[in-house]
Amino acid sequence: MLTIALPKGALLKDSVALFKAIGLDFSALLDKANRQLEVWDSTHTARVLLVRNSDVPVYVEYGQAQLGVVGYDVLREKQSTVAHLVDLGFGYCRMCVAVKQDSPYRRTLDLLPHSRIASKFVNCARDYFNQHDLPVEVVPLHGSVELGPITGMSEAIVDLVATGTTLRENNLVEIDQLFESTARLIANPVSYRLDQANMHQHIDQIREQMLVSAAQR
Amino acid sequence: MLTIALPKGALLKDSVALFKAIGLDFSALLDKANRQLEVWDSTHTARVLLVRNSDVPVYVEYGQAQLGVVGYDVLREKQSTVAHLVDLGFGYCRMCVAVKQDSPYRRTLDLLPHSRIASKFVNCARDYFNQHDLPVEVVPLHGSVELGPITGMSEAIVDLVATGTTLRENNLVEIDQLFESTARLIANPVSYRLDQANMHQHIDQIREQMLVSAAQR
Repeated sequence: MLTIALPKGALLKDSVALFKAIGLDFSALLDKANRQLEVWDSTHTARVLLVRNSDVPVYVEYGQAQLGVVGYDVLREKQSTVAHLVDLGFGYCRMCVAVKQDSPYRRTLDLLPHSRIASKFVNCARDYFNQHDLPVEVVPLHGSVELGPITGMSEAIVDLVATGTTLRENNLVEIDQLFESTARLIANPVSYRLDQANMHQHIDQIREQMLVSAAQR
Repeated sequence: MLTIALPKGALLKDSVALFKAIGLDFSALLDKANRQLEVWDSTHTARVLLVRNSDVPVYVEYGQAQLGVVGYDVLREKQSTVAHLVDLGFGYCRMCVAVKQDSPYRRTLDLLPHSRIASKFVNCARDYFNQHDLPVEVVPLHGSVELGPITGMSEAIVDLVATGTTLRENNLVEIDQLFESTARLIANPVSYRLDQANMHQHIDQIREQMLVSAAQR
């Protein structure tokens, strides 16, 4: 049986629609009253594990799920050993450097060496500043990263931006972009090579589906 | 001005009650409509930064808050450089090893070497198994750790248990305890030595308050 790890939150609705289009109906996941973390499709050919966004690559890497849907941002941050198969197009956002609107910084290299950068994405932030040869101190936070510059704890933040509303509400401004992110279909590398649970067939159907939706646009 | 980092979630209500008892009223934080991350008390002598539980020691360590309230579990996991001042008594829970009810394991040392242990508290888990000289693979997860044993990804979990309901609902059973946790008052070490923002006076009042409540019990 095919097991798919799907992320709670923003990517769930589009993920369910994607698998519905290839004949696997997990609509039960969209029911707000749903508390189940394991859900089967109506034909009992596949099962979903509903997990945190950042846990999707873990379940896929350890082979507890053969397939998974997860944001590229998580894949960049966690560097899990999983096969990246398809760019699913939805869940667009970008990883940015942002500073206070009234700060003197207008691009990354304006920041002084040894500045503090608050981020939930510490590996992405470290890599980026290393590439720019700018030694900074990355302060790991788990939520409300925008409080970093507001309280004066950090000169800048590295964070995901979708609409930019949170930045504007907190008088922050985006000054540089690390990368863009969309949802990706990933697979356990061993399962993929062995075509476990007929997964190639499903992956091909998803690829076709992507071409169909691209043609419709 | 005194700045206090308080954690969103389970510890907030008791934290607000504690500061109210020493004359600092942050009741606005308990208003469900509140979206402010910075809140002043009515006399404007102190300010609260409302942050994630695991970010409290970060704000205190970096001196953006002189005082903070946070669970001992977070302090054990993060090993931040902060002064531990007062055991506040509320927010009791325990860090446990749990396994599937139908597994053969009834204590930590029953687990085989190289077992997998899923946990949000990877440092606590590693320290504990190192102390037991039992080499294990700790699998870092961010949510729903109970899925680890259910899906067969891990033999056991290390997680916080308050009432035990989540364990029971998932047919898991607690087999050993790492430590007990309650909320702690912490301080930035430099601010504490310098008695910034009259913090010693507030800390003394909190200590007295703890004695009063202990006497009432």
